[in-house]
Amino acid sequence: MCETCGCSQNQGTKVMDVHKSILSANERQAQANKEHLARLGAVAINMISSPGSGKTTLLERTIDELGKELRIGVIEGDIETDRDAERIRAKGVPVVQITTGGACHLDAHLVHKGIRTLEAQLTRPMLDLLFIENVGNLVCPAAFKLGEHHRMVLLSVPEGSDKPIKYPKAFLSADIFVITKIDLLEYFDFSIEEAFDYALRLNPKLKTIALSAKTGEGMNEWLVYLKGVIH
Amino acid sequence: MCETCGCSQNQGTKVMDVHKSILSANERQAQANKEHLARLGAVAINMISSPGSGKTTLLERTIDELGKELRIGVIEGDIETDRDAERIRAKGVPVVQITTGGACHLDAHLVHKGIRTLEAQLTRPMLDLLFIENVGNLVCPAAFKLGEHHRMVLLSVPEGSDKPIKYPKAFLSADIFVITKIDLLEYFDFSIEEAFDYALRLNPKLKTIALSAKTGEGMNEWLVYLKGVIH
Repeated sequence: MCETCGCSQNQGTKVMDVHKSILSANERQAQANKEHLARLGAVAINMISSPGSGKTTLLERTIDELGKELRIGVIEGDIETDRDAERIRAKGVPVVQITTGGACHLDAHLVHKGIRTLEAQLTRPMLDLLFIENVGNLVCPAAFKLGEHHRMVLLSVPEGSDKPIKYPKAFLSADIFVITKIDLLEYFDFSIEEAFDYALRLNPKLKTIALSAKTGEGMNEWLVYLKGVIH
Repeated sequence: MCETCGCSQNQGTKVMDVHKSILSANERQAQANKEHLARLGAVAINMISSPGSGKTTLLERTIDELGKELRIGVIEGDIETDRDAERIRAKGVPVVQITTGGACHLDAHLVHKGIRTLEAQLTRPMLDLLFIENVGNLVCPAAFKLGEHHRMVLLSVPEGSDKPIKYPKAFLSADIFVITKIDLLEYFDFSIEEAFDYALRLNPKLKTIALSAKTGEGMNEWLVYLKGVIH
Protein backbone atom coordinates (compact mmCIF):
# COMPACT_ATOMS: atom_id res chain seq x y z
CA MET A 1 0.00 0.00 0.00
CA CYS A 2 1.40 3.33 -1.04
CA GLU A 3 1.12 5.86 1.76
CA THR A 4 1.76 8.96 -0.31
CA CYS A 5 -1.45 9.50 -2.20
CA GLY A 6 -3.00 6.08 -2.65
CA CYS A 7 -3.33 6.16 -6.42
CA SER A 8 -1.12 3.09 -6.67
CA GLN A 9 -2.69 1.10 -3.91
CA ASN A 10 -3.34 -1.99 -6.04
CA GLN A 11 -0.49 -1.61 -8.45
CA GLY A 12 2.48 -3.34 -6.85
CA THR A 13 6.14 -2.58 -6.43
CA LYS A 14 6.92 -0.62 -9.59
CA VAL A 15 4.81 2.31 -8.50
CA MET A 16 5.93 1.91 -4.90
CA ASP A 17 9.53 2.42 -6.01
CA VAL A 18 8.65 5.46 -8.07
CA HIS A 19 6.73 6.94 -5.16
CA LYS A 20 9.60 6.30 -2.76
CA SER A 21 11.90 8.12 -5.11
CA ILE A 22 9.44 11.03 -5.41
CA LEU A 23 9.24 11.34 -1.64
CA SER A 24 12.98 11.18 -1.26
CA ALA A 25 13.50 13.88 -3.93
CA ASN A 26 10.85 15.91 -2.11
CA GLU A 27 12.64 15.50 1.22
CA ARG A 28 15.92 16.71 -0.26
CA GLN A 29 14.19 19.81 -1.67
CA ALA A 30 12.37 20.36 1.63
CA GLN A 31 15.70 20.36 3.46
CA ALA A 32 17.08 22.89 0.93
CA ASN A 33 13.98 25.07 1.47
CA LYS A 34 14.55 24.99 5.22
CA GLU A 35 18.12 26.22 4.75
CA HIS A 36 16.90 28.88 2.31
CA LEU A 37 14.32 30.05 4.86
CA ALA A 38 17.00 30.16 7.57
CA ARG A 39 18.97 32.60 5.40
CA LEU A 40 15.83 34.78 5.22
CA GLY A 41 15.42 34.52 8.98
CA ALA A 42 11.93 33.08 8.50
CA VAL A 43 10.06 30.51 10.56
CA ALA A 44 7.66 28.71 8.19
CA ILE A 45 4.29 27.20 9.09
CA ASN A 46 2.58 24.72 6.75
CA MET A 47 -1.21 25.02 7.15
CA ILE A 48 -3.19 21.86 6.33
CA SER A 49 -6.98 21.46 6.36
CA SER A 50 -10.08 20.65 4.31
CA PRO A 51 -11.48 23.28 1.93
CA GLY A 52 -13.40 25.99 3.74
CA SER A 53 -12.01 25.46 7.24
CA GLY A 54 -11.01 29.10 7.50
CA LYS A 55 -7.26 29.14 6.79
CA THR A 56 -7.34 32.40 4.82
CA THR A 57 -9.66 34.13 7.30
CA LEU A 58 -7.35 33.18 10.17
CA LEU A 59 -4.39 34.57 8.20
CA GLU A 60 -6.22 37.85 7.53
CA ARG A 61 -6.95 38.31 11.21
CA THR A 62 -3.41 37.27 12.19
CA ILE A 63 -1.91 39.86 9.83
CA ASP A 64 -4.25 42.50 11.28
CA GLU A 65 -2.94 41.69 14.76
CA LEU A 66 0.76 41.07 14.10
CA GLY A 67 1.49 42.69 10.74
CA LYS A 68 3.04 45.82 12.23
CA GLU A 69 5.13 43.96 14.77
CA LEU A 70 6.42 41.09 12.62
CA ARG A 71 7.49 40.77 8.99
CA ILE A 72 5.00 38.25 7.62
CA GLY A 73 4.98 36.60 4.19
CA VAL A 74 2.45 34.18 2.71
CA ILE A 75 2.59 31.46 0.05
CA GLU A 76 -0.91 30.52 -1.08
CA GLY A 77 -1.41 27.07 -2.58
CA ASP A 78 -4.54 26.43 -4.64
CA ILE A 79 -5.56 24.12 -7.43
CA GLU A 80 -7.06 27.01 -9.40
CA THR A 81 -7.69 30.76 -8.90
CA ASP A 82 -5.74 33.41 -7.01
CA ARG A 83 -8.65 34.47 -4.78
CA ASP A 84 -6.86 33.68 -1.54
CA ALA A 85 -3.73 35.59 -2.56
CA GLU A 86 -5.88 38.61 -3.47
CA ARG A 87 -7.39 38.57 0.02
CA ILE A 88 -3.94 38.45 1.63
CA ARG A 89 -2.50 41.07 -0.73
CA ALA A 90 -5.22 43.46 0.41
CA LYS A 91 -3.64 43.23 3.89
CA GLY A 92 -0.40 44.69 2.53
CA VAL A 93 1.98 41.79 3.12
CA PRO A 94 4.13 40.01 0.51
CA VAL A 95 2.23 37.07 -0.95
CA VAL A 96 2.80 34.56 -3.74
CA GLN A 97 0.08 32.43 -5.31
CA ILE A 98 0.98 28.93 -6.42
CA THR A 99 -1.70 27.20 -8.49
CA THR A 100 -1.06 23.48 -8.81
CA GLY A 101 -3.19 23.01 -11.94
CA GLY A 102 -5.02 19.95 -10.67
CA ALA A 103 -2.59 18.58 -8.10
CA CYS A 104 -4.00 17.89 -4.66
CA HIS A 105 -1.15 19.24 -2.50
CA LEU A 106 1.91 21.45 -2.49
CA ASP A 107 5.33 19.85 -2.73
CA ALA A 108 8.78 21.14 -1.84
CA HIS A 109 9.68 21.99 -5.45
CA LEU A 110 6.64 24.22 -5.87
CA VAL A 111 7.37 25.90 -2.54
CA HIS A 112 10.99 26.47 -3.61
CA LYS A 113 9.69 28.46 -6.60
CA GLY A 114 7.29 30.26 -4.27
CA ILE A 115 10.06 31.28 -1.87
CA ARG A 116 12.17 32.65 -4.75
CA THR A 117 9.23 34.68 -6.11
CA LEU A 118 8.45 35.96 -2.62
CA GLU A 119 12.07 36.96 -2.07
CA ALA A 120 11.93 39.17 -5.15
CA GLN A 121 9.04 41.11 -3.54
CA LEU A 122 10.81 41.82 -0.26
CA THR A 123 12.11 45.34 0.27
CA ARG A 124 14.46 43.99 2.95
CA PRO A 125 15.73 40.44 2.49
CA MET A 126 14.32 39.22 5.82
CA LEU A 127 11.07 37.76 7.10
CA ASP A 128 9.97 36.68 10.59
CA LEU A 129 7.09 34.39 9.69
CA LEU A 130 6.17 32.62 6.46
CA PHE A 131 2.73 31.02 6.28
CA ILE A 132 2.33 28.37 3.60
CA GLU A 133 -1.39 27.78 3.02
CA ASN A 134 -1.63 24.32 1.50
CA VAL A 135 -4.30 23.10 -0.95
CA GLY A 136 -7.63 22.42 0.81
CA ASN A 137 -7.26 18.69 1.45
CA LEU A 138 -6.97 16.92 4.79
CA VAL A 139 -5.30 13.83 3.30
CA CYS A 140 -2.55 14.20 0.69
CA PRO A 141 -0.66 17.31 1.91
CA ALA A 142 0.32 15.39 5.08
CA ALA A 143 2.70 13.19 3.05
CA PHE A 144 4.80 16.06 1.67
CA LYS A 145 7.31 18.06 3.69
CA LEU A 146 7.73 21.55 2.29
CA GLY A 147 10.66 22.71 4.41
CA GLU A 148 8.37 24.10 7.12
CA HIS A 149 9.48 24.44 10.73
CA HIS A 150 6.01 23.82 12.11
CA ARG A 151 3.06 21.95 10.70
CA MET A 152 -0.42 23.06 11.60
CA VAL A 153 -3.67 21.20 11.07
CA LEU A 154 -6.96 23.10 11.21
CA LEU A 155 -10.44 21.70 11.74
CA SER A 156 -13.55 23.87 11.70
CA VAL A 157 -16.53 23.25 13.95
CA PRO A 158 -18.93 22.43 11.06
CA GLU A 159 -16.70 19.53 9.95
CA GLY A 160 -17.34 17.43 13.07
CA SER A 161 -15.20 16.41 16.04
CA ASP A 162 -14.56 12.85 14.77
CA LYS A 163 -12.24 13.97 11.97
CA PRO A 164 -8.92 13.32 13.79
CA ILE A 165 -9.64 9.58 13.90
CA LYS A 166 -11.02 9.48 10.36
CA TYR A 167 -8.09 11.43 8.83
CA PRO A 168 -5.25 10.61 11.23
CA LYS A 169 -2.17 11.31 9.13
CA ALA A 170 -2.43 15.09 9.19
CA PHE A 171 -2.84 14.99 12.98
CA LEU A 172 0.02 12.53 13.43
CA SER A 173 2.45 14.72 11.52
CA ALA A 174 1.41 18.13 12.90
CA ASP A 175 2.91 20.21 15.73
CA ILE A 176 -0.19 22.29 16.37
CA PHE A 177 -3.91 21.56 16.00
CA VAL A 178 -6.22 24.57 15.75
CA ILE A 179 -10.01 24.27 15.92
CA THR A 180 -11.57 27.19 14.02
CA LYS A 181 -15.04 28.80 13.91
CA ILE A 182 -15.82 28.14 17.59
CA ASP A 183 -18.39 30.96 17.38
CA LEU A 184 -20.55 28.30 15.65
CA LEU A 185 -20.45 25.76 18.49
CA GLU A 186 -24.07 26.35 19.49
CA TYR A 187 -25.33 25.30 16.04
CA PHE A 188 -23.36 22.05 15.74
CA ASP A 189 -22.98 18.82 17.64
CA PHE A 190 -19.23 19.42 18.05
CA SER A 191 -17.14 18.78 21.16
CA ILE A 192 -13.80 20.59 21.41
CA GLU A 193 -12.79 18.22 24.19
CA GLU A 194 -13.55 15.14 22.08
CA ALA A 195 -11.69 16.49 19.03
CA PHE A 196 -8.62 17.36 21.12
CA ASP A 197 -8.79 14.01 22.90
CA TYR A 198 -8.88 12.05 19.62
CA ALA A 199 -5.98 14.08 18.25
CA LEU A 200 -3.88 13.86 21.42
CA ARG A 201 -4.31 10.09 21.54
CA LEU A 202 -2.72 9.98 18.07
CA ASN A 203 -0.09 12.59 18.85
CA PRO A 204 0.39 13.52 22.54
CA LYS A 205 2.85 16.31 21.69
CA LEU A 206 0.29 18.38 19.74
CA LYS A 207 -0.22 21.96 20.87
CA THR A 208 -4.00 22.56 20.81
CA ILE A 209 -5.86 25.85 20.42
CA ALA A 210 -9.56 26.55 19.81
CA LEU A 211 -10.46 29.94 18.35
CA SER A 212 -12.77 32.07 16.28
CA ALA A 213 -11.14 34.50 13.85
CA LYS A 214 -14.57 36.14 13.61
CA THR A 215 -15.21 36.99 17.26
CA GLY A 216 -11.55 36.92 18.35
CA GLU A 217 -12.13 34.30 21.06
CA GLY A 218 -8.96 32.23 21.51
CA MET A 219 -6.97 34.49 19.14
CA ASN A 220 -4.66 35.65 21.92
CA GLU A 221 -3.41 32.12 22.59
CA TRP A 222 -2.68 31.74 18.87
CA LEU A 223 -0.77 35.04 18.71
CA VAL A 224 1.26 34.11 21.80
CA TYR A 225 2.07 30.76 20.16
CA LEU A 226 3.29 32.52 17.01
CA LYS A 227 5.49 34.93 18.95
CA GLY A 228 6.92 31.93 20.78
CA VAL A 229 7.90 30.00 17.65
CA ILE A 230 9.94 32.82 16.14
CA HIS A 231 12.22 33.08 19.17
CA MET B 1 1.65 17.60 -14.97
CA CYS B 2 -0.05 14.51 -13.72
CA GLU B 3 -3.77 15.08 -13.38
CA THR B 4 -4.52 12.05 -11.23
CA CYS B 5 -3.25 12.97 -7.83
CA GLY B 6 -0.42 15.39 -8.36
CA CYS B 7 2.24 13.50 -6.46
CA SER B 8 4.34 13.28 -9.59
CA GLN B 9 3.88 16.80 -10.79
CA ASN B 10 7.59 17.57 -11.10
CA GLN B 11 8.85 14.12 -11.88
CA GLY B 12 8.61 13.76 -15.65
CA THR B 13 7.48 11.07 -18.02
CA LYS B 14 8.31 7.89 -16.10
CA VAL B 15 5.69 8.58 -13.45
CA MET B 16 3.28 9.95 -16.06
CA ASP B 17 3.40 6.61 -17.87
CA VAL B 18 2.86 4.66 -14.66
CA HIS B 19 -0.08 6.88 -13.77
CA LYS B 20 -1.62 6.48 -17.23
CA SER B 21 -1.39 2.74 -16.84
CA ILE B 22 -2.99 2.92 -13.36
CA LEU B 23 -5.87 4.99 -14.71
CA SER B 24 -6.36 2.68 -17.64
CA ALA B 25 -6.38 -0.42 -15.35
CA ASN B 26 -8.85 1.45 -13.16
CA GLU B 27 -11.10 2.23 -16.12
CA ARG B 28 -11.20 -1.42 -17.15
CA GLN B 29 -12.18 -2.46 -13.62
CA ALA B 30 -14.76 0.35 -13.46
CA GLN B 31 -16.37 -0.98 -16.64
CA ALA B 32 -16.43 -4.49 -15.14
CA ASN B 33 -18.04 -3.07 -11.97
CA LYS B 34 -20.72 -1.38 -14.08
CA GLU B 35 -21.56 -4.70 -15.74
CA HIS B 36 -21.55 -6.43 -12.35
CA LEU B 37 -23.96 -3.79 -10.99
CA ALA B 38 -26.21 -4.22 -14.03
CA ARG B 39 -26.54 -7.92 -13.16
CA LEU B 40 -27.64 -6.87 -9.65
CA GLY B 41 -30.11 -4.41 -11.15
CA ALA B 42 -28.45 -1.56 -9.23
CA VAL B 43 -27.96 2.07 -10.21
CA ALA B 44 -24.80 3.27 -8.43
CA ILE B 45 -24.10 6.81 -7.23
CA ASN B 46 -20.54 7.88 -6.33
CA MET B 47 -20.70 10.60 -3.64
CA ILE B 48 -17.73 13.01 -3.60
CA SER B 49 -17.12 15.84 -1.12
CA SER B 50 -14.82 17.26 1.56
CA PRO B 51 -14.83 15.70 5.03
CA GLY B 52 -17.84 16.73 7.09
CA SER B 53 -20.07 17.92 4.28
CA GLY B 54 -22.88 15.67 5.41
CA LYS B 55 -22.75 12.65 3.09
CA THR B 56 -23.59 10.10 5.79
CA THR B 57 -26.34 12.25 7.30
CA LEU B 58 -27.95 12.66 3.86
CA LEU B 59 -27.77 8.88 3.38
CA GLU B 60 -29.40 8.24 6.77
CA ARG B 61 -32.29 10.54 5.93
CA THR B 62 -32.59 9.11 2.41
CA ILE B 63 -32.83 5.56 3.79
CA ASP B 64 -35.50 6.73 6.26
CA GLU B 65 -37.52 8.11 3.37
CA LEU B 66 -36.98 5.47 0.66
CA GLY B 67 -35.76 2.37 2.50
CA LYS B 68 -39.14 0.63 2.45
CA GLU B 69 -39.86 1.45 -1.17
CA LEU B 70 -36.44 0.72 -2.71
CA ARG B 71 -33.72 -1.84 -2.07
CA ILE B 72 -30.77 0.33 -1.07
CA GLY B 73 -27.17 -0.76 -0.44
CA VAL B 74 -24.21 1.34 0.68
CA ILE B 75 -20.44 1.05 0.27
CA GLU B 76 -18.64 3.30 2.76
CA GLY B 77 -15.14 4.47 1.89
CA ASP B 78 -12.95 5.80 4.69
CA ILE B 79 -9.26 6.07 5.39
CA GLU B 80 -9.72 4.67 8.89
CA THR B 81 -12.62 3.62 11.16
CA ASP B 82 -15.99 2.05 10.37
CA ARG B 83 -18.06 4.78 12.06
CA ASP B 84 -19.98 5.69 8.92
CA ALA B 85 -20.85 2.06 8.18
CA GLU B 86 -22.11 1.64 11.76
CA ARG B 87 -24.43 4.62 11.30
CA ILE B 88 -25.82 3.16 8.06
CA ARG B 89 -26.09 -0.37 9.49
CA ALA B 90 -28.31 1.02 12.23
CA LYS B 91 -30.76 1.94 9.46
CA GLY B 92 -31.12 -1.74 8.53
CA VAL B 93 -29.73 -1.71 4.99
CA PRO B 94 -26.84 -3.79 3.63
CA VAL B 95 -23.57 -1.88 4.03
CA VAL B 96 -19.89 -2.61 3.47
CA GLN B 97 -17.05 -0.58 4.95
CA ILE B 98 -13.90 -0.16 2.87
CA THR B 99 -10.98 1.38 4.76
CA THR B 100 -8.24 2.51 2.42
CA GLY B 101 -5.49 2.49 5.06
CA GLY B 102 -4.13 5.91 4.15
CA ALA B 103 -5.21 6.27 0.53
CA CYS B 104 -7.05 9.45 -0.36
CA HIS B 105 -9.79 8.01 -2.60
CA LEU B 106 -11.62 4.84 -3.59
CA ASP B 107 -10.64 3.10 -6.81
CA ALA B 108 -12.50 0.59 -8.96
CA HIS B 109 -10.57 -2.41 -7.55
CA LEU B 110 -11.55 -1.59 -3.97
CA VAL B 111 -15.16 -1.06 -5.05
CA HIS B 112 -15.12 -4.42 -6.86
CA LYS B 113 -14.25 -6.09 -3.54
CA GLY B 114 -16.94 -4.01 -1.84
CA ILE B 115 -19.62 -5.10 -4.32
CA ARG B 116 -18.71 -8.78 -3.82
CA THR B 117 -18.87 -8.43 -0.02
CA LEU B 118 -22.17 -6.58 -0.28
CA GLU B 119 -23.61 -9.26 -2.58
CA ALA B 120 -22.92 -11.88 0.09
CA GLN B 121 -25.16 -9.90 2.50
CA LEU B 122 -28.16 -9.68 0.19
CA THR B 123 -31.09 -11.94 0.94
CA ARG B 124 -32.29 -11.48 -2.64
CA PRO B 125 -29.61 -10.93 -5.29
CA MET B 126 -31.01 -7.58 -6.41
CA LEU B 127 -30.61 -3.92 -5.45
CA ASP B 128 -32.25 -0.77 -6.78
CA LEU B 129 -29.75 1.83 -5.57
CA LEU B 130 -26.15 1.53 -4.47
CA PHE B 131 -24.59 4.56 -2.80
CA ILE B 132 -20.80 4.62 -2.78
CA GLU B 133 -19.64 7.16 -0.19
CA ASN B 134 -16.12 8.13 -1.25
CA VAL B 135 -13.29 9.23 1.08
CA GLY B 136 -13.77 12.82 2.29
CA ASN B 137 -11.67 14.65 -0.28
CA LEU B 138 -12.86 17.11 -2.92
CA VAL B 139 -9.80 16.60 -5.15
CA CYS B 140 -8.44 13.09 -5.76
CA PRO B 141 -11.65 11.00 -5.96
CA ALA B 142 -12.67 12.93 -9.08
CA ALA B 143 -9.91 11.21 -11.10
CA PHE B 144 -11.10 7.65 -10.44
CA LYS B 145 -14.16 6.06 -12.02
CA LEU B 146 -15.64 3.37 -9.80
CA GLY B 147 -18.22 1.94 -12.19
CA GLU B 148 -20.89 4.35 -10.98
CA HIS B 149 -23.82 5.41 -13.17
CA HIS B 150 -24.05 8.86 -11.62
CA ARG B 151 -21.46 11.01 -9.91
CA MET B 152 -22.58 13.39 -7.22
CA VAL B 153 -20.61 16.24 -5.70
CA LEU B 154 -21.74 17.70 -2.36
CA LEU B 155 -20.83 21.07 -0.87
CA SER B 156 -22.02 22.17 2.56
CA VAL B 157 -22.93 25.77 3.37
CA PRO B 158 -20.07 26.23 5.90
CA GLU B 159 -17.46 25.45 3.20
CA GLY B 160 -18.20 28.58 1.14
CA SER B 161 -19.80 29.20 -2.25
CA ASP B 162 -16.48 29.72 -4.08
CA LYS B 163 -15.45 26.05 -3.90
CA PRO B 164 -16.60 25.06 -7.44
CA ILE B 165 -14.03 27.39 -9.01
CA LYS B 166 -11.30 26.45 -6.52
CA TYR B 167 -11.82 22.67 -6.88
CA PRO B 168 -13.22 22.40 -10.42
CA LYS B 169 -12.50 18.79 -11.31
CA ALA B 170 -15.14 17.21 -9.08
CA PHE B 171 -17.74 19.62 -10.51
CA LEU B 172 -16.62 19.03 -14.09
CA SER B 173 -16.99 15.27 -13.80
CA ALA B 174 -20.25 15.15 -11.80
CA ASP B 175 -23.85 14.68 -12.97
CA ILE B 176 -25.46 16.19 -9.91
CA PHE B 177 -24.37 18.93 -7.47
CA VAL B 178 -26.07 18.98 -4.08
CA ILE B 179 -25.64 21.83 -1.61
CA THR B 180 -26.16 20.50 1.94
CA LYS B 181 -26.88 22.10 5.33
CA ILE B 182 -28.98 24.96 3.93
CA ASP B 183 -30.54 25.31 7.39
CA LEU B 184 -27.26 27.10 8.24
CA LEU B 185 -27.56 29.77 5.54
CA GLU B 186 -28.33 32.55 8.01
CA TYR B 187 -25.02 32.04 9.84
CA PHE B 188 -22.73 32.04 6.79
CA ASP B 189 -21.89 34.33 3.92
CA PHE B 190 -22.93 31.67 1.39
CA SER B 191 -24.90 32.22 -1.81
CA ILE B 192 -26.65 29.18 -3.32
CA GLU B 193 -27.09 31.11 -6.55
CA GLU B 194 -23.37 31.93 -6.77
CA ALA B 195 -22.29 28.34 -6.02
CA PHE B 196 -24.67 26.95 -8.65
CA ASP B 197 -23.60 29.62 -11.13
CA TYR B 198 -19.88 28.81 -10.70
CA ALA B 199 -20.59 25.10 -11.07
CA LEU B 200 -22.88 25.47 -14.08
CA ARG B 201 -20.32 27.61 -15.89
CA LEU B 202 -17.91 24.67 -15.56
CA ASN B 203 -20.52 22.05 -16.36
CA PRO B 204 -23.84 23.28 -17.80
CA LYS B 205 -25.41 19.80 -17.66
CA LEU B 206 -25.22 19.54 -13.86
CA LYS B 207 -28.46 18.82 -12.02
CA THR B 208 -28.50 21.13 -8.98
CA ILE B 209 -30.34 20.67 -5.69
CA ALA B 210 -30.04 22.57 -2.39
CA LEU B 211 -31.26 20.79 0.74
CA SER B 212 -31.05 20.27 4.47
CA ALA B 213 -31.15 16.68 5.68
CA LYS B 214 -31.80 18.15 9.14
CA THR B 215 -34.94 20.20 8.43
CA GLY B 216 -36.02 18.28 5.33
CA GLU B 217 -36.07 21.40 3.13
CA GLY B 218 -35.24 20.40 -0.47
CA MET B 219 -35.30 16.68 0.38
CA ASN B 220 -38.30 16.04 -1.85
CA GLU B 221 -36.45 17.21 -4.96
CA TRP B 222 -33.59 14.84 -4.07
CA LEU B 223 -35.94 11.88 -3.55
CA VAL B 224 -37.70 12.59 -6.87
CA TYR B 225 -34.28 12.72 -8.55
CA LEU B 226 -33.34 9.32 -7.08
CA LYS B 227 -36.61 7.72 -8.18
CA GLY B 228 -35.97 9.16 -11.65
CA VAL B 229 -32.48 7.68 -12.05
CA ILE B 230 -33.55 4.12 -11.30
CA HIS B 231 -36.11 4.08 -14.10
